[in-house]
Order: sequence, then C-alpha cells, then structure tokens
Amino acid sequence: MTPHATTDALAALDAHYAAMPPVAAMQVRTRDYDGARLRLTAPLAANVNDKGCAFGGSLAGLMTLAAWGLVTLKLGEAGRRAEVYVADSQIRYLAPLYDTLVAEARLAEAETWEGFLATYAERGRARAIVHARVALPNGGDAATLVARFAALGPGA
Amino acid sequence: MTPHATTDALAALDAHYAAMPPVAAMQVRTRDYDGARLRLTAPLAANVNDKGCAFGGSLAGLMTLAAWGLVTLKLGEAGRRAEVYVADSQIRYLAPLYDTLVAEARLAEAETWEGFLATYAERGRARAIVHARVALPNGGDAATLVARFAALGPGA
Repeated sequence: MTPHATTDALAALDAHYAAMPPVAAMQVRTRDYDGARLRLTAPLAANVNDKGCAFGGSLAGLMTLAAWGLVTLKLGEAGRRAEVYVADSQIRYLAPLYDTLVAEARLAEAETWEGFLATYAERGRARAIVHARVALPNGGDAATLVARFAALGPGA
Repeated sequence: MTPHATTDALAALDAHYAAMPPVAAMQVRTRDYDGARLRLTAPLAANVNDKGCAFGGSLAGLMTLAAWGLVTLKLGEAGRRAEVYVADSQIRYLAPLYDTLVAEARLAEAETWEGFLATYAERGRARAIVHARVALPNGGDAATLVARFAALGPGA
C-alpha cells in the first residue's frame, strides 16, 4: 500500500469519526498508522473529568475507536467493504492522565491479519481480537483494552 | 432516607455529570433511583453512530457513569465523602439500540452495601462490583457491564 493510499484511508476514518456526534464532541483525530498500529488522539479539554484528568469514558471510547479503526483500515487495504462491530471488551483503568489522549491499537499477538482476511474472504465474516492502550507521557499506561470485533460482509 | 434527600442527591449527581465536558456532550441525566437501582438517560441524537443506532462508546460510558453514580450515592447516604474510581470493566455489546439510552446500575448479587460501607468505615477504602445494563425497548439488553470500583477516603 502506498503512502498516498494511507493518507486517503486516514482521511476517510477522520470523516467517519467526525460524522458521529459523540465522537465529534470528543474531538477525535487520527494521528498515524504504520501498517500495524493505528494511533488516535483527542484533546484533554474536551475529555476531562471533575478531577482535571481524562474521563474514563473517553479513555475507553478512544481505545475502542482506535481498535475499530484498525480493523476497518485492514479490511479497506484488502478491498473489502465490511461492517465492523465491537462484540465485547475488557478495560483496565491504571493511572490518571493529565495530558492529551493518545490511544494506540494493534492486533492481538496470537492472531494475524492474513488469517483474519482469509477467513473473511472465505466466509464473508471474521473475528479479530485487538489490543489498545493509552500511554502516560512518562511511560506506563493510563488504560488498556482488549476487544473482540466482528466483520460482516454485505451478504452475511 | 427521605424523598427530599434523594432529590437533592440526584440533583448533585446531575450537576456533577454536567460539569464534565464529554458527559455534558452526551446529555446525561439521572432518571430515577429506588435505593438499590440508579437509572441514567441520554438522548439518541447526541449519542448516535454512523449506523443510526447508539454509539458503543456512549453505551459503555452511560453504564459506567450509572455504576459510578450508584456507588457515590451510597457513600453519600452514609455521610461519607469519598473519591470513587473505576478500576476495570467488562462490556458486552449485544444488540443495536435505536431509541433513548437508559442505563441502570445495581450492586452485584454477591455483595451488600452494608458490607461495602462497613469496610469503608473501618479502613477508609473499599471496593464494590457493580452491574449495569442498557435495556432494549422490547426486552433484552443492548449492552451489559460489570465493573469494579474503589472508594478512597480523604486520608487513604
């Protein structure tokens, strides 16, 4: 995939996020994508709680959106137009974050995108387990997420 | 506890939610509280995704806020001023919701508020497991949550 295609795909993802009112309110933006890891960012001011740090719901939402976006990008790279749904997630809140939110998502180590895409090509549906985290500025994590996603094709 | 005290406590909770920008954007409001179960509501329009149904992040956020609010109400009824933190959560997304979001939270069946408050009184800190759900209009659940909370007193 070319850098130009990546730029277009991230612009499409940004447009997708901006079209959802609660996500627009969080001011979510794509930050970068290296083919394996997607990072999203959101300003603290739009996502702050009463203690002056990042609201847990925003941490959870941003990680879920990053994980969802990664699955969507991978299907797009393969020329697939599937609907992607989150099935379930486990979230851990580890430390307060007093800075810009940056969530990064990657596929679970036990899985491969090749396997996911092959299953989708064969059955018109597939599942993926994605990990995400919001890092603290000085190391460690503010929160982590493990989520399962389902991709369903037009005929599924 | 008198109905008047309940009304004041719910008004305080509403003010608390409204003071957090991402929660204000979701237009979260308390709906009712019967001493065991707290219900929060939020309009679909402010929480809709690109498919016209409730955004998963809003379902998760509303359930987490209901669970957090229930723990906060119980501490307040006991005259305690603790900080309440969510430690972790498990969320299941079960069915799309095309209606107003209503999240209801209650203590896990294996636990009691008496036990939670006794532990808090003794140690200045305590943990609670809270269940929440967003019901579908015609029965069943759109999403469910199980979350663990920690209450920490001023000296903890």
